[in-house]
Amino acid sequence: MKMTENCGIIGVFGHPEAANLTYLGLYSLQHRGQESAGIVSSDGRSLRPYRGMGLVSEDFTPEAMRRLRGDRAIGHVRYSTTGSSHIRNAQPFTVEYALGGLAIAHNGNLTNAEPIRDDLVAHGSIFQSTMDTEVIVHLIAHAREPVFVDRLITALRRIQGAYSLVFLSGDQLIALRDPNGFRPLNLGRLGHASVVASETCAFDLMDARYVREIEPGEIVVIDKKGSRSVKPFGRTEPTPCIFEFIYFARPDSLIFNQSVYAVRLKFGRELAREHPTQADMVIPLPDSGFPAAIGYAQEAGIPLEMGLIRNHYIGRTFIEPEQSIRHFGVKVKLNAIRDVIRGKSVVLVDDSVVRATTGRKIVKMVRQAGASQIHVRISSPPITHPCFYGIDTPLKEELIAATHTIDEVRDYLEADSLGYLSLEGLKACMGENGCRFCHACFTGDYPVPIPSQPGDAEDTPSSPMVVSGYHGVEDERAR
Amino acid sequence: MKMTENCGIIGVFGHPEAANLTYLGLYSLQHRGQESAGIVSSDGRSLRPYRGMGLVSEDFTPEAMRRLRGDRAIGHVRYSTTGSSHIRNAQPFTVEYALGGLAIAHNGNLTNAEPIRDDLVAHGSIFQSTMDTEVIVHLIAHAREPVFVDRLITALRRIQGAYSLVFLSGDQLIALRDPNGFRPLNLGRLGHASVVASETCAFDLMDARYVREIEPGEIVVIDKKGSRSVKPFGRTEPTPCIFEFIYFARPDSLIFNQSVYAVRLKFGRELAREHPTQADMVIPLPDSGFPAAIGYAQEAGIPLEMGLIRNHYIGRTFIEPEQSIRHFGVKVKLNAIRDVIRGKSVVLVDDSVVRATTGRKIVKMVRQAGASQIHVRISSPPITHPCFYGIDTPLKEELIAATHTIDEVRDYLEADSLGYLSLEGLKACMGENGCRFCHACFTGDYPVPIPSQPGDAEDTPSSPMVVSGYHGVEDERAR
Amino acid sequence: MKMTENCGIIGVFGHPEAANLTYLGLYSLQHRGQESAGIVSSDGRSLRPYRGMGLVSEDFTPEAMRRLRGDRAIGHVRYSTTGSSHIRNAQPFTVEYALGGLAIAHNGNLTNAEPIRDDLVAHGSIFQSTMDTEVIVHLIAHAREPVFVDRLITALRRIQGAYSLVFLSGDQLIALRDPNGFRPLNLGRLGHASVVASETCAFDLMDARYVREIEPGEIVVIDKKGSRSVKPFGRTEPTPCIFEFIYFARPDSLIFNQSVYAVRLKFGRELAREHPTQADMVIPLPDSGFPAAIGYAQEAGIPLEMGLIRNHYIGRTFIEPEQSIRHFGVKVKLNAIRDVIRGKSVVLVDDSVVRATTGRKIVKMVRQAGASQIHVRISSPPITHPCFYGIDTPLKEELIAATHTIDEVRDYLEADSLGYLSLEGLKACMGENGCRFCHACFTGDYPVPIPSQPGDAEDTPSSPMVVSGYHGVEDERAR
Amino acid sequence: MKMTENCGIIGVFGHPEAANLTYLGLYSLQHRGQESAGIVSSDGRSLRPYRGMGLVSEDFTPEAMRRLRGDRAIGHVRYSTTGSSHIRNAQPFTVEYALGGLAIAHNGNLTNAEPIRDDLVAHGSIFQSTMDTEVIVHLIAHAREPVFVDRLITALRRIQGAYSLVFLSGDQLIALRDPNGFRPLNLGRLGHASVVASETCAFDLMDARYVREIEPGEIVVIDKKGSRSVKPFGRTEPTPCIFEFIYFARPDSLIFNQSVYAVRLKFGRELAREHPTQADMVIPLPDSGFPAAIGYAQEAGIPLEMGLIRNHYIGRTFIEPEQSIRHFGVKVKLNAIRDVIRGKSVVLVDDSVVRATTGRKIVKMVRQAGASQIHVRISSPPITHPCFYGIDTPLKEELIAATHTIDEVRDYLEADSLGYLSLEGLKACMGENGCRFCHACFTGDYPVPIPSQPGDAEDTPSSPMVVSGYHGVEDERAR
Repeated sequence: MKMTENCGIIGVFGHPEAANLTYLGLYSLQHRGQESAGIVSSDGRSLRPYRGMGLVSEDFTPEAMRRLRGDRAIGHVRYSTTGSSHIRNAQPFTVEYALGGLAIAHNGNLTNAEPIRDDLVAHGSIFQSTMDTEVIVHLIAHAREPVFVDRLITALRRIQGAYSLVFLSGDQLIALRDPNGFRPLNLGRLGHASVVASETCAFDLMDARYVREIEPGEIVVIDKKGSRSVKPFGRTEPTPCIFEFIYFARPDSLIFNQSVYAVRLKFGRELAREHPTQADMVIPLPDSGFPAAIGYAQEAGIPLEMGLIRNHYIGRTFIEPEQSIRHFGVKVKLNAIRDVIRGKSVVLVDDSVVRATTGRKIVKMVRQAGASQIHVRISSPPITHPCFYGIDTPLKEELIAATHTIDEVRDYLEADSLGYLSLEGLKACMGENGCRFCHACFTGDYPVPIPSQPGDAEDTPSSPMVVSGYHGVEDERAR
Repeated sequence: MKMTENCGIIGVFGHPEAANLTYLGLYSLQHRGQESAGIVSSDGRSLRPYRGMGLVSEDFTPEAMRRLRGDRAIGHVRYSTTGSSHIRNAQPFTVEYALGGLAIAHNGNLTNAEPIRDDLVAHGSIFQSTMDTEVIVHLIAHAREPVFVDRLITALRRIQGAYSLVFLSGDQLIALRDPNGFRPLNLGRLGHASVVASETCAFDLMDARYVREIEPGEIVVIDKKGSRSVKPFGRTEPTPCIFEFIYFARPDSLIFNQSVYAVRLKFGRELAREHPTQADMVIPLPDSGFPAAIGYAQEAGIPLEMGLIRNHYIGRTFIEPEQSIRHFGVKVKLNAIRDVIRGKSVVLVDDSVVRATTGRKIVKMVRQAGASQIHVRISSPPITHPCFYGIDTPLKEELIAATHTIDEVRDYLEADSLGYLSLEGLKACMGENGCRFCHACFTGDYPVPIPSQPGDAEDTPSSPMVVSGYHGVEDERAR
Repeated sequence: MKMTENCGIIGVFGHPEAANLTYLGLYSLQHRGQESAGIVSSDGRSLRPYRGMGLVSEDFTPEAMRRLRGDRAIGHVRYSTTGSSHIRNAQPFTVEYALGGLAIAHNGNLTNAEPIRDDLVAHGSIFQSTMDTEVIVHLIAHAREPVFVDRLITALRRIQGAYSLVFLSGDQLIALRDPNGFRPLNLGRLGHASVVASETCAFDLMDARYVREIEPGEIVVIDKKGSRSVKPFGRTEPTPCIFEFIYFARPDSLIFNQSVYAVRLKFGRELAREHPTQADMVIPLPDSGFPAAIGYAQEAGIPLEMGLIRNHYIGRTFIEPEQSIRHFGVKVKLNAIRDVIRGKSVVLVDDSVVRATTGRKIVKMVRQAGASQIHVRISSPPITHPCFYGIDTPLKEELIAATHTIDEVRDYLEADSLGYLSLEGLKACMGENGCRFCHACFTGDYPVPIPSQPGDAEDTPSSPMVVSGYHGVEDERAR
Repeated sequence: MKMTENCGIIGVFGHPEAANLTYLGLYSLQHRGQESAGIVSSDGRSLRPYRGMGLVSEDFTPEAMRRLRGDRAIGHVRYSTTGSSHIRNAQPFTVEYALGGLAIAHNGNLTNAEPIRDDLVAHGSIFQSTMDTEVIVHLIAHAREPVFVDRLITALRRIQGAYSLVFLSGDQLIALRDPNGFRPLNLGRLGHASVVASETCAFDLMDARYVREIEPGEIVVIDKKGSRSVKPFGRTEPTPCIFEFIYFARPDSLIFNQSVYAVRLKFGRELAREHPTQADMVIPLPDSGFPAAIGYAQEAGIPLEMGLIRNHYIGRTFIEPEQSIRHFGVKVKLNAIRDVIRGKSVVLVDDSVVRATTGRKIVKMVRQAGASQIHVRISSPPITHPCFYGIDTPLKEELIAATHTIDEVRDYLEADSLGYLSLEGLKACMGENGCRFCHACFTGDYPVPIPSQPGDAEDTPSSPMVVSGYHGVEDERAR
């Protein structure tokens, strides 16, 4: 079964332009998923779904938007992973079941979807998609309670892992986070309307006001009478995802009640303290390395320069020359400014290193532009373990820090020096006392049990991508 | 719940170009459905689905065909009905269930889908499409037998109505017809490969040899060991659809073991005997009226002339002029040849009359071209009842013969005379002794019980389109 | 230089929906060209052009039509020839020159475009397309007269060959035919508006009334004051194209003041007299052979049967199977009805034979369907010479009748007998006394000098396609 | 006549992958024009053109690239201006004329195109596009010299204004700049191949080495024998465009032999000296304001912060909500980070102010994010005059600095203070002694005469967009 991966979700209740607001919200969350986008609107009676492949700005036509009538809506943008690109995996997922129509949008990844699915199938259920989200819907449909929220709670007690969810059911909009609160989800207000979004940058474009984050383990039920909070899990020990701060979220967002930009700036400052260097300039990797690079430059007292320029017109397809011209790699996306770099010692600041293949090319490009010394600084610890809660990290074998020492990574990068932010430094920046984050990707300390692997000798999974063999039906690609 | 409507289905087993052959078959069956087309191929292990909206020649790219590997495949073309145009209703329908992957292609319409669906939903099933085909799959998934064919038989005992089906399951291709045999389905051979098609014209393009029709109530199971026949319903009383002969099937096909062209020719001859006339020429309505018109002309000894010409470049969209130019209607598709018709008395031969709105326009066009007399002859009886077994007839209220006498229809058409083929004549042409056909559309004598309607005072349904209110989720249109 | 080839042209003057009417006209003339379509409208001041590749019904969107304001318009559909498929060769051709804006739509082919073009280029002209039409515009631009029609006459005196033309210039619509009148062009009325069309079937859809054909050598000038006729060539000896009657025009059209259908019927009757045969049935090749087959059947007293069925859903692309399935050829378009043909002797009637490759496949298909004897009858004489006046015939080497005797063609077709309509019979059908037709394709008797070929030993050109080497710029294909 | 506007051009000679290299070059110059892109390749005999609307990455398919054979090629990307969006205005422009095929790509704008065009038209020329580039081609075609370069020189003596040009003619690639050198053009080497590009960032992606800029008034003729330089204008007084440095060029390019990034950094430093301020942070406007902001921050000793975040997923279409949500303007593209800005005094640095409407919205957004004080700093002088040499500035009436004092602009922006870089400061940064730049947009001191306007009382043109009424033919939009 494929994982749902990290995504972006939106909900709007009680606004005459609910679908339009959802569109704006998805537009702001586009960085959380570019593979597909969808909106389901409702007037409280019937659901109106619309989904498409690709970007929000390409999927929704004015005519499509006009069809999405009603004063409530939910929306979803899906992250692109290889091989499962098809409209039937686009969300929101919409079904008819015992209580009527139901629409769901899911951000995160369940860790026990496979055994539940096997059990459901053994008892006669059919599965049409490869999304773990379909498991949640089956559990709700099989629950016997007459009220949706009660069925939902019954279903949630069965599932484990990372899930921030929004539903349209009957005359209600429901939004919730798993007890660990792995993925963000926020509440806002726009006049009398309630809005929900993965990140607060969506509220900014919707002109909505941020109210608070939905708490880990909290179910918020919104209807015409107002909103109420249900906490079926009692007291929880939240472990929100640290990688949202490191890389995934937009710097202009609040998540988990903190400013992403401010946190990244702190990472950069701490990195400068942990790994100081003598250099002529600090160069950020555009655009993800900007805030940390600024923090590093400020703390280190080294001038910041934009020595790497990003090409803003990257298209879907790039035709590589055939014979003589080779190894473009990053050159299509980035260019080094020779006149800035030539003869200088530089600090390159990036947010993280996964496989290091891109980083190696960038170091080479900067070297060719004439840098005398290249010091790579990474504003996060070495990634040594795959994520099972929604971040699209590769197999453990492909994580360079899982199999190489830091010196080896430095040598692979062909950098003069390499410094990672320490886990302790990272925690210090987060002010981690009341709130503990999930840093399993750096430590392997998984807060929720992960699926065991076939032939799993050392109990450490080598890959989150093949949790189970869903080999019956290959993914479809239609026109 | 929407009905599946009449469609075209194909199956191929044991040929290295199974998907390509299926493509050819669907191409030949395009007249049975232009809304969507799909193929699922298999190598006996995993299923590879591909579906698209529109014509076969537009949907399948060379790249798509290359992905459809394996030596077996099934295919489907879907008839277009208003409002339900979406990829999730395209077939083949592919799911994962207890026995693994399953693909199904369905031609026909179930009459008791609604109560079964309500029962399934009440017990926790979820429905993702608006097709009655999904009911069949749920029934198979809920059956407990360990072998697919046994589960299938259990499922078939629950359903009623019209269904010709092909499945890919495990290492088998299964093809079957309902006990009434409403819809056609034929067996053929191509070398060592087995092929299945709604009409034999598909075999012609595939270069396959027609073997026999699959019998009403027969399940044909094809695997590497060969094919075997299962007849779970015992002795049946078949009632194949007469309308396939009148209009739906291609004239170059055999269906129900008879030549469609030859039957239509007989209809025309019988029509000439029942409704002779003095006229200068017989004019067929292109192209559906051709065979009957030839028969009529031959029997009546009146010259056949192509007085109406069809425009072969009808596109998807036609932009109607705004103000001064009006009432195109049939003129976009047909034109009358003034020099042929002027001053002549003509016999117009068509296959059937549904609403009579198009016929009225054609009569007017022929009159304006100068015809002195217009005698309309229809090679089928008056349609007075809607079809619940797959033919896309409208509401009873819209069937002109249901609410008007023949004289009134003639007056509405503004024809000088009007003659329908009698039911007796029709039966005589079919040589109906051993084999009885379904002519419920002419008589209301439904061989399988039809759904009762809410507030159904006179026990005659007014429309097959609103068998049940599936109002929970509106149909989706995606990009 | 590429030839313009046979095309369809439309003109409308003095109607508030001029562009919409032109659209309807082009829609009716779609059989004369499917490669590109264009309309230029005008309000008497500025020209509004719109062109697109492909079918009329695909090119023009409602938004595009709304932009085409003004009470006058001209339109063009272009025939598809290999390799020159680009928007810059789409017409109408629109330029700015000394008298302002000018739009032209051209049907036909000039025979002396090449030397004129060479002369123009030598004196500083630039050419942007590969159309001979561009030569006409240059000649008009280089003329010195202050009035458009006078410049036009000056230009026409330079050019030779086949040309029916419509222009929008200043406040006038001009329509004309070359002195030989190779290509048709007709005048009609719609209320107070004047309309012009290649064939009268366009008038039928536009709801316009046919007035008369524009005469060979006649220039019709239409403006707000009315229309007037200019005949700068004095008395001419018209030689309209016989092939328009044999194949090109629609049967529901009048061209050269005669009914196409009626003429084809006569061809069939005459063919039956010249080449009678004993047979069970006459089978037309759909759809072009229909009228002649009806004439043949009537004259011969042999029943007509639709033994060949055409697939109406032919798309742009057809994916041929790779290995085992082969030689589709005509099978994708046509199918033979076995039950009609089996054991019967048949007469196959078609309009013409060019290369005979398709005919050979059809004879084979009919033979495989079980025909005991196959007698091929062609309603035109053997084509022995290429056309230089607009019909897209191939190289002389590829014309089977140019290099083979009739017996050899029959053997190639594998027919039991073969009969062509004689030239005398053809002439007799046309009632050719006052009016002489061009039958150069049957006789090599070219009424207008054709370009001599490089190394042209026997003074008979082998191909009209390479009149001159326009090798400087290859044709463009853009997205 | 429409102006060609600023564009990007590429030339490659003597490389087996000439078209692929040109593709890479255009990809790098995409910021210079997103409306259309085109490549013409050649093997020295025939020209192969390909053009498309939109981005390079969307226009060129692998199939299209394969057709572009030959070891030389030129390419063009066109800047988008309202209303003239059509393929016939896409470049390279390709014609056939007296010396054979000719392809041209043009960056810049002629100031005397209109009278030349009128003269050409009066003498019989026809114009098919609305580009002033067509004038150049006509002049070359009308010249009498037998050698291309001589004809070219004759043509260049007639034209005035801004033009950097590349040609493919016969077996030569020709590249040149106008005597003023308004627009950049550079020479590079890749192995034995010669390459030409508007900016050196193209060389970086092509893996080519920068050699030198082509000099103002220099014609570089490249063929198999090598390259030679022709300087027909003798000694010139170059006035390259300062706005290329301020805004247009990419920061990683060299133009006019200087690093764009380094110059912008200097502008920022000088701006800080001219307009110092007390503030908590310097915020660049992404991305154009980055280098100047860094320079300002460094010089002023104020921390740089990324207070404005750019949305990287801006699509072609953005559907604005209808009623309640309004005035998106910049919010779709930019967002202010509340947590960074709240309660702080900020310096906003941008490169230039044209209409000030966007700037006003940004100031408002920053104010709403909580800034206590907003000091706007612009790294160029006030734009008071339109450009006639290729930069797409609006009508004089729309240039806010043309009609308002600086205080009024500040009030309109609702900023607390506003500082422009002075002209003197600008010149100082450029080290302007040997080289004089064109700063007509700041001074109205046009180095080449500009077209006089109809009713031009004060001899100062109000708009460069309506230099002349080319009203004969409206621009076309085709499918």
